[in-house]
Amino acid sequence: MAGEPFEIDAEPSSSPVSPLTAAAVRLLGERRLILAANRGPVSFSAGADGTLRTRRGSGGVVTALSQVGEHVPVTWVAATMNDADRRAARDPEALARALPTDRVRLRLAPVGRTVFEAAHNVIANPLLWFFQHEMWNLPERPMIDAATMRAWHSGYVPLNEAFAEAVVREVPRGDREPRILLHDYHLYLAAAAIRRARPDAILSHFTHIPWPSSSLWLVLPPVIREGIVRGLLANDVVGFQTARYAHNFLRSVETFVPAAHVDFLSRTVVHDGRLTRIRVYPISIDVVATRRVAASAAARRRRVELQATSAERMLVRVDRLEPSKNILRGFRAFEALLERHSELRGSLSFLAFLVPSRTSIREYRDYGRKVRDEAERINARFGRAGRVPVQIFFKHDYAQALAGLSIANVILVNPLIDGMNLVAKEAAVVNERDGVLVLSETAGAYDQMADGALPVAAADIVGTANALAAALAMPVAERHARLERLRAGVEREDISWWLQRQLEDLAGIVESRESAEERSEIRRRARPRRSAGG
Amino acid sequence: MAGEPFEIDAEPSSSPVSPLTAAAVRLLGERRLILAANRGPVSFSAGADGTLRTRRGSGGVVTALSQVGEHVPVTWVAATMNDADRRAARDPEALARALPTDRVRLRLAPVGRTVFEAAHNVIANPLLWFFQHEMWNLPERPMIDAATMRAWHSGYVPLNEAFAEAVVREVPRGDREPRILLHDYHLYLAAAAIRRARPDAILSHFTHIPWPSSSLWLVLPPVIREGIVRGLLANDVVGFQTARYAHNFLRSVETFVPAAHVDFLSRTVVHDGRLTRIRVYPISIDVVATRRVAASAAARRRRVELQATSAERMLVRVDRLEPSKNILRGFRAFEALLERHSELRGSLSFLAFLVPSRTSIREYRDYGRKVRDEAERINARFGRAGRVPVQIFFKHDYAQALAGLSIANVILVNPLIDGMNLVAKEAAVVNERDGVLVLSETAGAYDQMADGALPVAAADIVGTANALAAALAMPVAERHARLERLRAGVEREDISWWLQRQLEDLAGIVESRESAEERSEIRRRARPRRSAGG
Repeated sequence: MAGEPFEIDAEPSSSPVSPLTAAAVRLLGERRLILAANRGPVSFSAGADGTLRTRRGSGGVVTALSQVGEHVPVTWVAATMNDADRRAARDPEALARALPTDRVRLRLAPVGRTVFEAAHNVIANPLLWFFQHEMWNLPERPMIDAATMRAWHSGYVPLNEAFAEAVVREVPRGDREPRILLHDYHLYLAAAAIRRARPDAILSHFTHIPWPSSSLWLVLPPVIREGIVRGLLANDVVGFQTARYAHNFLRSVETFVPAAHVDFLSRTVVHDGRLTRIRVYPISIDVVATRRVAASAAARRRRVELQATSAERMLVRVDRLEPSKNILRGFRAFEALLERHSELRGSLSFLAFLVPSRTSIREYRDYGRKVRDEAERINARFGRAGRVPVQIFFKHDYAQALAGLSIANVILVNPLIDGMNLVAKEAAVVNERDGVLVLSETAGAYDQMADGALPVAAADIVGTANALAAALAMPVAERHARLERLRAGVEREDISWWLQRQLEDLAGIVESRESAEERSEIRRRARPRRSAGG
Repeated sequence: MAGEPFEIDAEPSSSPVSPLTAAAVRLLGERRLILAANRGPVSFSAGADGTLRTRRGSGGVVTALSQVGEHVPVTWVAATMNDADRRAARDPEALARALPTDRVRLRLAPVGRTVFEAAHNVIANPLLWFFQHEMWNLPERPMIDAATMRAWHSGYVPLNEAFAEAVVREVPRGDREPRILLHDYHLYLAAAAIRRARPDAILSHFTHIPWPSSSLWLVLPPVIREGIVRGLLANDVVGFQTARYAHNFLRSVETFVPAAHVDFLSRTVVHDGRLTRIRVYPISIDVVATRRVAASAAARRRRVELQATSAERMLVRVDRLEPSKNILRGFRAFEALLERHSELRGSLSFLAFLVPSRTSIREYRDYGRKVRDEAERINARFGRAGRVPVQIFFKHDYAQALAGLSIANVILVNPLIDGMNLVAKEAAVVNERDGVLVLSETAGAYDQMADGALPVAAADIVGTANALAAALAMPVAERHARLERLRAGVEREDISWWLQRQLEDLAGIVESRESAEERSEIRRRARPRRSAGG
């Protein structure tokens, strides 16, 4: 089997025993952690000669979860996403060869092509992802018609059941209370199916994307919105990126599962004789790995190239090219800045590193075209003698993007609504110019970075232009102090911290599960509530 | 001066002393109530000979507020919306002649054309109305640019100040604690300006449209979102249509005015040494007046006409023709119904009474075109021999719409997000066929009508088709019982009840204002809060 090597450190990255390793040992003992996510750490393809080749998985969730295996022995269950994956699912040797170490074991939940297409391309991505990012033009989309409902019942539901079966199969015989982490919006229903087979399971689900207010969920069919909320309540812990999303989830439980007992203060729900904790775990980056790439030869080369073609000062953004990133308004704000500050024309470049994303979806392609048009319009207006103010880099070149962030004077991260946004955190740890972070208040990252970033309201072009001007005019001492605060925050609350807190919480749950206090709390709250009129 | 007569009952409609009149006397004593709303009970136009003519104001808010004058002596302050209004504003005799009785006195806040255009056609309607109905395609709209901010500062703000001045001018010399009701999204800032001039005023504001979650408000510029929230906190009472909107407002206060002390349980806010109560007043209809129109000769004529051209059974909707009403999905649901239930083809007509609205706005025109196209497509598919399943009536004919509601077997009210929706209430009191109300859970009216209506999720075409089928298949006894519950609810909680509760609350506030308890509650909550980390 040929393919790119899957790089994973041969040794745990922390020594002596890190708090994360300690938490893992406390939670797992001799067990493996079972982790389920739509994508695996590698995916398969068939080479010209028919042999299975592997390719490293991409995307923020995979990158984050790949960290888990560095600290904890993991069995990672992913979906079969193509025919090569389906072949590999039946080929234990191919799976074993796909990863260089047994610390991460790959298992593929066998999902047929039509089930996967319906679950992925009708429900998860065009419906749930768009909906949870509030990216809908409500009067016309979504139209939940018979095809949508078929995709739910014959796609999303069976995909979740296939995951549940694959997860349960990985629990060693005789193992009690298996520890299982489920990830993201593809797997909202998996916990309930696992719970039916393994009532003793320790189950946690983490949603990487935003959770909108219950009034928005109200426009979706009951079978979907209640199915999702009830499905999540089968977990012991339901994790979100921010306190706002956790609150919105609790309100959704209150609205769609009237029999559940919601406590907003302790963020717990009692339902069906079980206690579910709603927790906030803001995801983060691997600071060491990020800096390693930023210091690589490739990044150094990119940095020299970027400096050669840019003006003296640089405004930088890095985003997947999609509508929730609010790229159009970013350009409009830059234009407004140049309008008012003629002294910046010629001395400020806007470098936009835009990674093409989901180009099979029309909305994404249309948005990409508008982004190009807007940049061209601004360049036609303010370009001078072969030098244009806006440079767009349409490619997936991580070293180049980090190079850009490292030399930026201002970093613009202005998404409309974003689960977390890791670019803001990457910028904080690689920037070398006391760069100022201009950050949307509706990015999940804002909750942790408010004390260092300049806030902007996403729809506010005037305010964004003002924030950019303020960033450029800021004295170096303040810029330095702000960046230091951001950097220290990300170093403290990095990806290990994110994982460690989850493992500690689960360990605490295992230890308290059978406690008298918890039993009595469940009993107390399971009593009929007083009438709402009281 | 010529013009249509403005009809108002010569006598109060309730006798002997109704609870509403009692509340009015308790609140007002010898005073007049001062009421401010963008539109007045009449507007002016210049006749061919230059004389001022009057036209009765239209729209739900005006209709509702016109009720106030039947029970309470009112001075109604409205904006000058055109040049004839501006002439009338300077012509006390024209104002006096415009209304047949002194119980409603009309005053016009003089607002210049450019101020009005900016306030109305840049901020209030395209921005606030769309935003509060969550009608945005967020990646592209709104773009808050310099023109928007100019319209805010030089339009919306001065319009509110003009209203405040006009209101203050109406307070009789020597009168203490004037009682002032402000209405809707045009006047969010008026209370603060009135409060500066008259710290003793008893101020109430009622928002007729939805109040979205604070996470949506977060995308708007701080000067707008905070300005609005702080502006509203200058009132003694801030009223909303539903508990959800009240909750969302309290969350907005918590998010945008950190110095305010919010109590979610009692729905109060202490800020700036003042206590503001957030209350829920679901608006309603004048049951007697509605039935009078439904029984009129015009309505009877319309009924005969409608029956002549329709199939045996009728599905009816009545709406302003605009995107939040979700007319397209209603047609798609009807189509899905005919697809599955071939026995209904030919025996079920869908009558859609659609009142053209804001046809100067492109989104409205585009939506109207799509509505026509969709109806034509369905008629081409299921029409037979000169009879089409969908009939659209594009006009403003209230008697005809009530005639349709009175003979409907099923009434479809499926808005995406709607402050209240009075059609649902009108249907309940005029329907004579044990008609079934199919009602969106995201209509404000749903909170009061859940025990009689069949609920639908607005985006759910399949669920809506199923609800229509269930309504058509429902036994008469259940239909009758459901309609009776709805009817009794609307009769009990009618427009008088809506107004009465507000007046009673204000009377209670006047009486408790200087009480020791309230002073001490304000002092207690004005103390610094404990740290959030505690």
